Amino acid sequence: MRQALAQAQKSYDANGIPVGAVLARNNERTPLAVGHNQRVQKENPILHGEMDCLQNYGRQKNYRGTTLYTTLSPCMMCAGTVVQFKIPSIVIGQKEVRVPADKPFTGNIDFLRSRGVEVRLLNDPGCEALFAEFLKNNMDLWLEDIGED
Amino acid sequence: MRQALAQAQKSYDANGIPVGAVLARNNERTPLAVGHNQRVQKENPILHGEMDCLQNYGRQKNYRGTTLYTTLSPCMMCAGTVVQFKIPSIVIGQKEVRVPADKPFTGNIDFLRSRGVEVRLLNDPGCEALFAEFLKNNMDLWLEDIGED
Repeated sequence: MRQALAQAQKSYDANGIPVGAVLARNNERTPLAVGHNQRVQKENPILHGEMDCLQNYGRQKNYRGTTLYTTLSPCMMCAGTVVQFKIPSIVIGQKEVRVPADKPFTGNIDFLRSRGVEVRLLNDPGCEALFAEFLKNNMDLWLEDIGED
Repeated sequence: MRQALAQAQKSYDANGIPVGAVLARNNERTPLAVGHNQRVQKENPILHGEMDCLQNYGRQKNYRGTTLYTTLSPCMMCAGTVVQFKIPSIVIGQKEVRVPADKPFTGNIDFLRSRGVEVRLLNDPGCEALFAEFLKNNMDLWLEDIGED
């Protein structure tokens, strides 16, 4: 998760959305791939942090024995991708984004579990602090990223 | 759907996976964007036809009033993306891929409908014929694309 947060910070420092992801083989410290949200940097709506990471990993026969680390609970696109790719395990830094109050983002932990994905939620203060800092001046960008307007 | 099938044919002619997609505003003939599967062409596992199309459309505030046409029923990644992006309507050429018999691909029509997406299924002979032709010599590639091995 430390490396996923570093990816989120890298995106934030480039005026992007601070969500980072790492794919790793279980019990190995060196990641298979890393990535971060690229909506701003590449003007690309499908490259959430998780998707960018999987794109960077390239074509694979399977994802057995891997874990995806993400700083923020996956949206429906990314959760669907985890299920489709049969990634068996995911570790999530931040559970949800409660602001604005009328458009809360609650992620898809229940969906992932219902499809057999092992989910571990860290409630990581570092992930939460970076995202709160981002939201201070970028609420419109955040809402665009989750399809709210 | 004719334009989505032309995208699928274009991918097939480049030795790629023949799934094509078109995003259009309702009642307009000129598409907002087109795309096709790019697993082979770009060595990219996330660029299914629907995802490539949405990437090509770039950043958007919303997808109100749009319909996504796809030659093959969307996988869980693409179905999740349609829900996340709040695309209200989808038209599907081919419902499912029944071979190999032990690894049928049934798409996600029920999931889409359960999330409020309007789904129209065409059972289009042109889409089905092209995909059947592709499967004759590319079963391994197809199974890789749906995460089966």
